[in-house]
Amino acid sequence: MPISPTHNDTLAAELDRAINNKTKPLGSLGTLEALARQLGLIQNTRDITITKPAILVFAADHGVVAEGISAYPQDVTWQMVENFLAGGAAINVFAKQNDCALRVIDAGVNHDFGPRHGLTDRKLAHGTRNFAQEPAMSHDLCQTALAAGAALAAELEGNVVGFGEMGIGNTTAAAALMHKLTGIAVAQCVGAGTGLSAEGILHKQRVIEAAVAHHASVTEAGDVLATFGGLEIAMMAGAMLKAAELRKVLLIDGFIVTSALLVAARMQPSILDYCIFAHCSNESGHQQMLAALGAKPLLNLGLRLGEGTGCALALPLLHAAANFLNQMATFESAQVSEKSE
Amino acid sequence: MPISPTHNDTLAAELDRAINNKTKPLGSLGTLEALARQLGLIQNTRDITITKPAILVFAADHGVVAEGISAYPQDVTWQMVENFLAGGAAINVFAKQNDCALRVIDAGVNHDFGPRHGLTDRKLAHGTRNFAQEPAMSHDLCQTALAAGAALAAELEGNVVGFGEMGIGNTTAAAALMHKLTGIAVAQCVGAGTGLSAEGILHKQRVIEAAVAHHASVTEAGDVLATFGGLEIAMMAGAMLKAAELRKVLLIDGFIVTSALLVAARMQPSILDYCIFAHCSNESGHQQMLAALGAKPLLNLGLRLGEGTGCALALPLLHAAANFLNQMATFESAQVSEKSE
Repeated sequence: MPISPTHNDTLAAELDRAINNKTKPLGSLGTLEALARQLGLIQNTRDITITKPAILVFAADHGVVAEGISAYPQDVTWQMVENFLAGGAAINVFAKQNDCALRVIDAGVNHDFGPRHGLTDRKLAHGTRNFAQEPAMSHDLCQTALAAGAALAAELEGNVVGFGEMGIGNTTAAAALMHKLTGIAVAQCVGAGTGLSAEGILHKQRVIEAAVAHHASVTEAGDVLATFGGLEIAMMAGAMLKAAELRKVLLIDGFIVTSALLVAARMQPSILDYCIFAHCSNESGHQQMLAALGAKPLLNLGLRLGEGTGCALALPLLHAAANFLNQMATFESAQVSEKSE
Repeated sequence: MPISPTHNDTLAAELDRAINNKTKPLGSLGTLEALARQLGLIQNTRDITITKPAILVFAADHGVVAEGISAYPQDVTWQMVENFLAGGAAINVFAKQNDCALRVIDAGVNHDFGPRHGLTDRKLAHGTRNFAQEPAMSHDLCQTALAAGAALAAELEGNVVGFGEMGIGNTTAAAALMHKLTGIAVAQCVGAGTGLSAEGILHKQRVIEAAVAHHASVTEAGDVLATFGGLEIAMMAGAMLKAAELRKVLLIDGFIVTSALLVAARMQPSILDYCIFAHCSNESGHQQMLAALGAKPLLNLGLRLGEGTGCALALPLLHAAANFLNQMATFESAQVSEKSE
């Protein structure tokens, strides 16, 4: 199904009027005013609501770790999933603080968890293949991941969905996607990830450059995703596309989540109308990736943790946008004098 | 009483160890890590808490409005105080959203409210005098305002206090304070306030330049405050000094609140150890004022509303800093592998 643009001149004018009548100098709530307007257009109403927000955290492993591109061993992916299930990770803390539901999805972790309370098992493989040597996923596997993500989005009860991820090696996949889909030089797409040295970053860059040369003929967004992506990235992209189709608000986290959106936006550009960019991360490349999407992030806190932490931290600003529009008095109702002419 | 610097090498090392042992890449929570460290040093403990946060909103009028320097009539000051009491202003909405107490103080509004539920009456005059012609306050009145602010801070139950203000004309006072205390040219200290035209801004600049020339001999911080400040600004500065002395966390809002802090910091530089800068506002001059204080604001949302709105919006980030330090698992407790050497 195609995603509808949110453009609506009549509603936009009504929203502007409602925002401007609030007891405050014109435009003085800055970004929050733009946010209220966007929420209204997404929800197609002047009465915006934030209902049962949820963050979906997709986890998977990456064959490209065989090239030594991460500062942490692959086992950290499943260990961190266990940490999510036990409630000890940053995303648990921030989601709880902000009354946000959290759903942890095994999209393709290289570990057998067995049936586990709180874990949504959508494992499609024990990680991807090493894209330095062969495509990370077959076309069919990638399509299955996209469809699985869409099915998850269709199950959402709330109207705001944040996206997070866990996957050792996935900044390498995301950097490759960024390069292929934006044309920005690999050197500018590559960062320290979980904490590489300058030497490690250079090695990562060379691995990606070689892989890009190896798969030079791949250009279509779906093929790029299958070749360089991850199961968590593909499943996220599928969930994003479906969530936008259902007119939900999409909260976009950091470097890897934004790379999934890059893919989705190449497939359906109107998805960007539904996206709120939670933050600009400290991962080198994220700023340019956001710029390539014309995105203005809400926060700039030097985060580079992933997990959807930026989404959870930005959520209070969405509430603030909805609350000022719904709860503030107008100049008329409060009998406050308006600006002198 | 002097304000103690928070510097403590042993505690700082303990806090760093605790932060670095959490299950996340080193430094990956960016600004929140610096915030947790600062909270620990202010509270002199590894077990940081955010208890009963409150925002004090100081309101007063300014004689300098006679020069035609504001886009809104002076009556808006008392009308907005009524709006605060009725719960219809932006600060009401954001304070409520973030479980933050709100205290509205009449420091010197040019209006007789009579006894009113929810209004703290500390009115010292019906506004200041017009500093274009004479000092805004006498030395004694200014000292009384500082002492009244200190007494209010001494009554606070919680350990985090945000500052807000309402006062038509007070960006003019704040710009004059900024110029006198930083030496930055008046033209760079003056902004649109509640919404002046370019012509209005130029007029405001000329009024300040003339006033500064008129009171050229005034240089000491307390005298500068009395000459150009407002009753709300002086009372705020007094409250800030006392709150820091009591080792509370000070949340600094926008242009006017930061100008009060400028004064306080000239009196006691160690106060800056206790300050968290909520946001960089869209009022021209705030960015340079923050830079003059070496301040790094948490948010940058293009706000220019005052009332303490930036403080309320930044509060969730303080909670996030405390919560990650108090609640996240460590690598050891979660049995997550550490970084490869």
